[in-house]
Amino acid sequence: MAEGRTRIGIVAPGSAIDRDVAERVTALAGRLYPDGRAELVFHPQCFETSGHFAGRDEMRLGALAQLANDDSLDAVWFARGGYGACRLVEGLLPLLGEGARRKTYMGYSDAGSLLGALYGRGFARLAHGPMPVDIIRVGGEAAVARALAFLVERRPEALEPSLSLEVPSAAFNLTILCHLLGTPWQPDLSDHVLMVEEVSEYMYRIDRDLFQLTGNPALRRVAGLKLGRCSDIPANRPDFGQSEEEVARSWCGRTGIAYLGRADIGHDVGNKVVPFGLWRV
Amino acid sequence: MAEGRTRIGIVAPGSAIDRDVAERVTALAGRLYPDGRAELVFHPQCFETSGHFAGRDEMRLGALAQLANDDSLDAVWFARGGYGACRLVEGLLPLLGEGARRKTYMGYSDAGSLLGALYGRGFARLAHGPMPVDIIRVGGEAAVARALAFLVERRPEALEPSLSLEVPSAAFNLTILCHLLGTPWQPDLSDHVLMVEEVSEYMYRIDRDLFQLTGNPALRRVAGLKLGRCSDIPANRPDFGQSEEEVARSWCGRTGIAYLGRADIGHDVGNKVVPFGLWRV
Repeated sequence: MAEGRTRIGIVAPGSAIDRDVAERVTALAGRLYPDGRAELVFHPQCFETSGHFAGRDEMRLGALAQLANDDSLDAVWFARGGYGACRLVEGLLPLLGEGARRKTYMGYSDAGSLLGALYGRGFARLAHGPMPVDIIRVGGEAAVARALAFLVERRPEALEPSLSLEVPSAAFNLTILCHLLGTPWQPDLSDHVLMVEEVSEYMYRIDRDLFQLTGNPALRRVAGLKLGRCSDIPANRPDFGQSEEEVARSWCGRTGIAYLGRADIGHDVGNKVVPFGLWRV
Repeated sequence: MAEGRTRIGIVAPGSAIDRDVAERVTALAGRLYPDGRAELVFHPQCFETSGHFAGRDEMRLGALAQLANDDSLDAVWFARGGYGACRLVEGLLPLLGEGARRKTYMGYSDAGSLLGALYGRGFARLAHGPMPVDIIRVGGEAAVARALAFLVERRPEALEPSLSLEVPSAAFNLTILCHLLGTPWQPDLSDHVLMVEEVSEYMYRIDRDLFQLTGNPALRRVAGLKLGRCSDIPANRPDFGQSEEEVARSWCGRTGIAYLGRADIGHDVGNKVVPFGLWRV
């Protein structure tokens, strides 16, 4: 950790990225911070592939534990979602030392399995936000620049605009959060504003996930639910008859959870940063 | 309830069936039991539609509670899965009287939300098995005949062949069981042989569901896991690299759950009946 410089280690707990992604993100960071303030360290594991995954579980786990425990790094940035982070959770936690708690961790989608589990273990510097792979989206440089603005400068413009200084928040992909429910890695989100977003899921699945989320006794104690963007919802036959907002309002209404409107997060270049817990400037 | 006759009420807690299904199932029951021992009562709600559902939630809930509390019925048979049973769970439980506990309930797929919740409330006559809608499958009469052989005659040939008289069992669609985890409707399956089957889910989703299932502390106390058929798995790109059995073995191995091999259940005409708990002849 050098004064005024932010050293960010990048690891892929789920699926792999192409080297091209690393090159483009590194080039962007160089243009945004010509003084070298943003130092990116892509772990070679990011480019490994093993079936669906960026290397076998042992390899991904090893790379992640290595970066998390590396005291020369200020942050661990998840390269991409895809699938596979959940397979690392149980093995990872015992490997993390005190140094791991001082870092910032950022990602979204599949990486939420790790953010949730770390939050449950008291890690205080976690954020739901854009990842390096977002650079391949149309207009994706804006998302990556936003992530860097948070990681390097803690700029408030990078943040989801409704964040409160007084009420803790957390954000997840809906499916990923639901898969933590009933496991030892479900974080305590009591009194938090909980933001959820979704992509490429049928509306009946969004509805079914909200059944589970709003049915969970601990999650009924959130301060309220905010709905991020639900994009690329496949057409339902027959039509589901409710929009994602109607579905969210309905489950919140049944279960006594405050529905707090939309959140500015999603699987897109507009995805804003949501630090977990209370945001400290 | 008349001596020697089994009166079966049929209701659709999720999606609707066509009248043709009711007619074919009724005709089959008449051929199989020309003495009238199998009396089928299709609730008109089965044929209602409201978007994705067999009528609005209130209508499906009302029909289900009516049949469950009807002392003239011996069994409630779920007409079809689809989606929607979970939306009835919380509202249904307070409506069920003592008479509801004396009935047999049978279904699978989406209907597992109800079977699980009822089992959690101590209902003792629940079974995972074929539904009326199975008659539209190629060879589907065999599935429906098997269901009737169980409901009307309790014939052992209808049962999943590995069932033990000494170890309690339960069976679920994997996705449906996972959506009960962390809710008040998750049943206690300690010391049970748990059978799960799946249909039309990507292998990575089966893997993710097994992460959640085997991560649940209560489910780590099952006697063991048996894997039913996983059919119509969409092709994964890249290839997932593990079959469903490899995935199940792997999660069981990681978590100390005994993997007990395959179960003769699935979304198909071969789907055998699995009574919940200890099977009493």
